[in-house]
Amino acid sequence: MEKDFKGLSQFYGDKLLHDVMPFWINHSLDHELGGYFTCLTREGQVFDTDKFLWLQNRELWMFSFLHEHLDAKSEWKDAACLGYNFLKKYGRASDGSWYFSVDRQGNPLIHPYNIFSDCFATMGFSQYAKMTGNDEAMQIAIATFNNILRRQGNPKGIWNKTIPSSRNLVNFSLPMILSNLVLLLKDVLPKDRVDQTVQECVNMVMNIFRDKDRGIIFENVLPNGDHHNSYEGRLINPGHGIESMWFIMDIAHAYGDTELMKQAVDTTISILEFGWDKDYEGIFYFLDEKGYPPLQLEWDQKLWWVHLETLISLSKAYLYTGDERCWEWYKKVHKYAWSHFNDDTFGEWFGYLNRQGNPLTTLKGSKWKGCFHLPRALYQCSITFAMLDKIQTKKNAV
Amino acid sequence: MEKDFKGLSQFYGDKLLHDVMPFWINHSLDHELGGYFTCLTREGQVFDTDKFLWLQNRELWMFSFLHEHLDAKSEWKDAACLGYNFLKKYGRASDGSWYFSVDRQGNPLIHPYNIFSDCFATMGFSQYAKMTGNDEAMQIAIATFNNILRRQGNPKGIWNKTIPSSRNLVNFSLPMILSNLVLLLKDVLPKDRVDQTVQECVNMVMNIFRDKDRGIIFENVLPNGDHHNSYEGRLINPGHGIESMWFIMDIAHAYGDTELMKQAVDTTISILEFGWDKDYEGIFYFLDEKGYPPLQLEWDQKLWWVHLETLISLSKAYLYTGDERCWEWYKKVHKYAWSHFNDDTFGEWFGYLNRQGNPLTTLKGSKWKGCFHLPRALYQCSITFAMLDKIQTKKNAV
Repeated sequence: MEKDFKGLSQFYGDKLLHDVMPFWINHSLDHELGGYFTCLTREGQVFDTDKFLWLQNRELWMFSFLHEHLDAKSEWKDAACLGYNFLKKYGRASDGSWYFSVDRQGNPLIHPYNIFSDCFATMGFSQYAKMTGNDEAMQIAIATFNNILRRQGNPKGIWNKTIPSSRNLVNFSLPMILSNLVLLLKDVLPKDRVDQTVQECVNMVMNIFRDKDRGIIFENVLPNGDHHNSYEGRLINPGHGIESMWFIMDIAHAYGDTELMKQAVDTTISILEFGWDKDYEGIFYFLDEKGYPPLQLEWDQKLWWVHLETLISLSKAYLYTGDERCWEWYKKVHKYAWSHFNDDTFGEWFGYLNRQGNPLTTLKGSKWKGCFHLPRALYQCSITFAMLDKIQTKKNAV
Repeated sequence: MEKDFKGLSQFYGDKLLHDVMPFWINHSLDHELGGYFTCLTREGQVFDTDKFLWLQNRELWMFSFLHEHLDAKSEWKDAACLGYNFLKKYGRASDGSWYFSVDRQGNPLIHPYNIFSDCFATMGFSQYAKMTGNDEAMQIAIATFNNILRRQGNPKGIWNKTIPSSRNLVNFSLPMILSNLVLLLKDVLPKDRVDQTVQECVNMVMNIFRDKDRGIIFENVLPNGDHHNSYEGRLINPGHGIESMWFIMDIAHAYGDTELMKQAVDTTISILEFGWDKDYEGIFYFLDEKGYPPLQLEWDQKLWWVHLETLISLSKAYLYTGDERCWEWYKKVHKYAWSHFNDDTFGEWFGYLNRQGNPLTTLKGSKWKGCFHLPRALYQCSITFAMLDKIQTKKNAV
């Protein structure tokens, strides 16, 4: 594989514009009742109509984001409006927190036990507000964001089944998502608030959840970052760790912090070395840090988002540092991902492969897979390679 | 495979007495603090010390049951006492409901959100009481049983994340387990109470959860037994359905109900036909009744308990009815199960195979796999084949 950055940028852009976004525009819009269908078969047939707030808000974000950053297509704006109106009306409980799911009509199904519904609502609503200038959308986004910060200490609230005094493990997901969310909100929050939240997130991710000696991220640690020798305490989710590293790289880039950038790049590489399946290729979904059997029966599967987030992290790492290890790894992951996940026949990507690399299910969308990781990664990789191409062209001209 | 019932009975009995029970006696007893270790590697090394109430109570039941029904070994009684004393002291919250898990020392970790902890506590404590004549154990068992019946309408209590008015699906697990539990308690509960509970369970299992046309059991149905076209509503767990059929066969046998027996045998066969993997053999873990992609990423895996419960159901079905379809299926499942799950090197069985039949993890015990399904099935199959042998010998003598 040559360093044809222009070609790579076009390749990602074409897939985004001519395959993936049309797939969601054609199959996922509920023109009748509003919102999106996300449970789609390989061909795009709707097989379930429940509406999961994670995926609804992520799809709203995706259409709005691409409208702002890539192309002000009216079909993307219309698709965003379709989601926004449904979500504004049916997405929240009376206290403003977001349900986990509602049915097709918008009747609530699952209580707001899951704070990530709120995280993605903040993303979706703030981005929609930027696209439309809709002030109500921005007010909802900011109120939701404040709600998240308030709920940080006990995100599951009354639905928390863990006895608080017992073990007190803290989980990686929220600081990880916040480190991305806060940059997405940087235009609308006061600067000192952004700076403070960024600093807290970076500290959590890099000092508390990252094992500095081994360069890997733990999913659950004691509040001071110490490890706990239990299922939860030994759990490694390589995709999570690698995804968080491009959030950190974006922060390091925005703040001009080269030391932080180096740490994020090194961590990306060491998680990849830890998480790569040396027998069948691809990145494992879950591992036990000591090599014990993980509880998760899906531990050895290869998931679409893990590989997409890795492609983003590696391409950004290479753009920001020129570290050749990143290009070497990029080539390896690119080759594996595009030859296994891409569906040549019906478009989009398969989501779930078995360890050997064959689709475990051919669905294109579900309760967890929607219009998010693939188009976001296609966009991110496309612009990253376009920047790499500019640098290369400039170099060649000198 | 010949109809060598005597040989089969011995084969199961030998595995139970000389391999499986010694494995748990040697590796799972926490002599220091009481209770059992259930997280064991392939070789039997303890890799996690948390104590999960499902598995603690099941192991207590297993030792006590075998002591009563197979051999009054003092080591089994001692092992049961070790569990009983720990569980009596640390297993319950102040309202008498059972925690989901406690740590090695007995400090509670996870709230009593899971009513099956209580079901297995009822089993364990009542069987322990029978073995020892300990009245306190029996009082705790009966109080727990009454608690289960009281909580039936909302088993997850305050930890229920579903909005009750929304969809109102009822789940199969509780009526299924109760149909077994009530027979185990028949000596200690008033007869009319037993009869009434049996009747209710049979009605739920055979009329509400069983699809009479297709002969398969649904995991979640509307209260009148109608199907709901959603992930939950389409979910089939073949192992669950087949396991419940031997509970129903035992009821049909105890009450001399030949029509119910025939239904249970037919249902066993039709679930097997539905759930059998025609490409790689073995029984799938989860399926969607319409063939859509199941949500469960582990759907195509082959689990130890599914195959063991199937061996019990088929051997009992053959004993009770002589239906040759059951013997044909028995041979097929026996061959698959013993050639894939049995660990010739370190004893016991592997728990989790991938679709192709190779161990996905080599653990012998975990948060979910303990001293229960394997020894119970070995015992059940051993006595069932002994009875078949008696019948055969009698026939041959005539």
